[in-house]
Amino acid sequence: MNKRKFLRQAGAASVAAGLVLASRSSEAQAPAADTKVLIVYHSVTGNTEKMAQGVAEGATGVSGISILVKKVGEVTGQDLLACDALIVGSPIYFANMAGEVKTFFDSWAFKFHFPFDDLKMRNKVGAAFVTGASVSNGKETTMQSIHAAMLINQMGVVSGGGAFGASATTGPDSPGVDENELAAARALGKRVAEFAAMIKRGSKA
Amino acid sequence: MNKRKFLRQAGAASVAAGLVLASRSSEAQAPAADTKVLIVYHSVTGNTEKMAQGVAEGATGVSGISILVKKVGEVTGQDLLACDALIVGSPIYFANMAGEVKTFFDSWAFKFHFPFDDLKMRNKVGAAFVTGASVSNGKETTMQSIHAAMLINQMGVVSGGGAFGASATTGPDSPGVDENELAAARALGKRVAEFAAMIKRGSKA
Amino acid sequence: MNKRKFLRQAGAASVAAGLVLASRSSEAQAPAADTKVLIVYHSVTGNTEKMAQGVAEGATGVSGISILVKKVGEVTGQDLLACDALIVGSPIYFANMAGEVKTFFDSWAFKFHFPFDDLKMRNKVGAAFVTGASVSNGKETTMQSIHAAMLINQMGVVSGGGAFGASATTGPDSPGVDENELAAARALGKRVAEFAAMIKRGSKA
Amino acid sequence: MNKRKFLRQAGAASVAAGLVLASRSSEAQAPAADTKVLIVYHSVTGNTEKMAQGVAEGATGVSGISILVKKVGEVTGQDLLACDALIVGSPIYFANMAGEVKTFFDSWAFKFHFPFDDLKMRNKVGAAFVTGASVSNGKETTMQSIHAAMLINQMGVVSGGGAFGASATTGPDSPGVDENELAAARALGKRVAEFAAMIKRGSKA
Repeated sequence: MNKRKFLRQAGAASVAAGLVLASRSSEAQAPAADTKVLIVYHSVTGNTEKMAQGVAEGATGVSGISILVKKVGEVTGQDLLACDALIVGSPIYFANMAGEVKTFFDSWAFKFHFPFDDLKMRNKVGAAFVTGASVSNGKETTMQSIHAAMLINQMGVVSGGGAFGASATTGPDSPGVDENELAAARALGKRVAEFAAMIKRGSKA
Repeated sequence: MNKRKFLRQAGAASVAAGLVLASRSSEAQAPAADTKVLIVYHSVTGNTEKMAQGVAEGATGVSGISILVKKVGEVTGQDLLACDALIVGSPIYFANMAGEVKTFFDSWAFKFHFPFDDLKMRNKVGAAFVTGASVSNGKETTMQSIHAAMLINQMGVVSGGGAFGASATTGPDSPGVDENELAAARALGKRVAEFAAMIKRGSKA
Repeated sequence: MNKRKFLRQAGAASVAAGLVLASRSSEAQAPAADTKVLIVYHSVTGNTEKMAQGVAEGATGVSGISILVKKVGEVTGQDLLACDALIVGSPIYFANMAGEVKTFFDSWAFKFHFPFDDLKMRNKVGAAFVTGASVSNGKETTMQSIHAAMLINQMGVVSGGGAFGASATTGPDSPGVDENELAAARALGKRVAEFAAMIKRGSKA
Repeated sequence: MNKRKFLRQAGAASVAAGLVLASRSSEAQAPAADTKVLIVYHSVTGNTEKMAQGVAEGATGVSGISILVKKVGEVTGQDLLACDALIVGSPIYFANMAGEVKTFFDSWAFKFHFPFDDLKMRNKVGAAFVTGASVSNGKETTMQSIHAAMLINQMGVVSGGGAFGASATTGPDSPGVDENELAAARALGKRVAEFAAMIKRGSKA
């Protein structure tokens, strides 16, 4: 089974259990600090899930990265606290993240009870990816709204695979997630993993 | 009982039943076309509800306006179709509307089943008001996100009581909704009612 | 010469002189109030100018509309005061309007000396169109930034031809303005002209 | 002369010459990698300049940081290439950065001729601060627009001193920059310097 296929199947499994992947770290040099990338998404039609898998694929190519992929409702407070980078994916509804994804962010306060002043997500890396029916129907505003939730918690926000993050047009004019869009997802995963690994090293130096 | 007090009590009643107010239309001249303003909000602490009441007060001062105030979960598809203007209020969570308000917008498609291409809210007037703990913690981005949901449905968006809409700072540095903030809420209600009445007249001319 | 060709040539002439078009108003019924649509743009490569011409074409199809197309540096304070609707087009530089277009908005205060509290643009209709190299490189954020400048002046903002306005992707993957994108520009022009005409009628009723 | 006073005077001098400050690095342990923070601003009334000085003060408190403060028109391409962090300050005009600041960003392409695909600012840290006449007149949207220009160039964006960055209300209701607002500016400078130093260490590890 090739890695791509595995990821797709694992992605399906991630609904209930979360998917943990460890990238190879077989370099001759000393291993980099273990950097944890948490990929969280909501998906109804499977398009955003497919993008999530692309992001995971991109991150696995970076040395010393472990990856956890979870549906938005399955994430625990401990998952958030443990990660070094958080990448959030959402379909676009009404030029904004899905209600389920908004409720996920709200849950940091209302369900996980992170005291806001503790800034528990501080200095973790944040990024976004989205899927939407047409070209300019809220991709950027949705990624910005994900970024805003991250910035307010003093995370460090990066783009990748696009000006604001990775995105896919999935409506009638361009159904599903095509290879270019998957490449953007992988570029985002790689970019976030590399940036987070750099910060992890810097925080320990 | 003065009007202000009545509105406050009526606001509390609106949780279950919706609050309908008809402004006086006793001008000597022929009455303006009846213009319906729907005010929708989510409130946990009561601050956003207080702002909703201020918005309603402002709109009642405009001739020929009927007003319906409802909590976000109580709104029906029929309420939306019947209104000429929709003013949405939200507390700010993570620099964006509350999950409950996002879910309200999503419900246009997922619960009320408005076919997107019908643009059933087209040419209705839209506006926003928000409450948040500190000065620049997402007031503007939250109002913009409400506007975006309206623009994508081809509503006509206006501000009032502030550059993007009415807002109140309710955190420790400035607890609750103060008189200046209520005045902004009233200015928004008045502005939206006047603009909607003008469009209503124009659409019938 | 067909209308389309004329508009394209007239567009070129508009650099120096401004282009004024009057749409036919030959309906049997009483003519609608004359509604003035001002289309303002910045263009280096000609793509945004082409979109401006599409917007103008769309507006000319609406009865009782006069149209003025001007480059951003040629607009006078009187042009702004006289219009009923203002549609601003910009190429996207760094996920925002071009410096020239920003300077145009700033000129309302610094060159035309509109006292802000006079809200001289109040209740005029505002809309935006943009061109950019790739799909999600700031189209939405640029249109939002144009909207924000309009909202703060209490204009009424509408979309058309897209969720936020009309846009064209003009980079290597999709060079120039294609027919679909021109159709979006025309849809925006038509939408704004109709909305502005309705407000004009309502304001006189 | 105390440091605060020196900074204020130096700030005035920075108009023509740029202000370079080196923070003390007298720790017993090996000195941190030298991290360069570039603070760029536009100011007409002096308010944004005062905030720039506050940001500089905050950054000087961090070990191993050198600081360069420049007016927006004085920045060279070399300044940009040399810095590890870029903090941009703007007054708010029409809910967006000043035309001068927008022109500064545009100059990366049009004057400094950075080839976009080279991503020459990649992984440098970016942040924003703003001053505006009233509370919610575009502070957040202006900081977001600065962030967007940075994200599109693959910089890593952080907040500090506020949800999106440091801001000051300088209009009639709250004239000038007060002590709380200066404290926010200092918090931003400190935060950016620390984050940039961490990345610098990580990039060399």
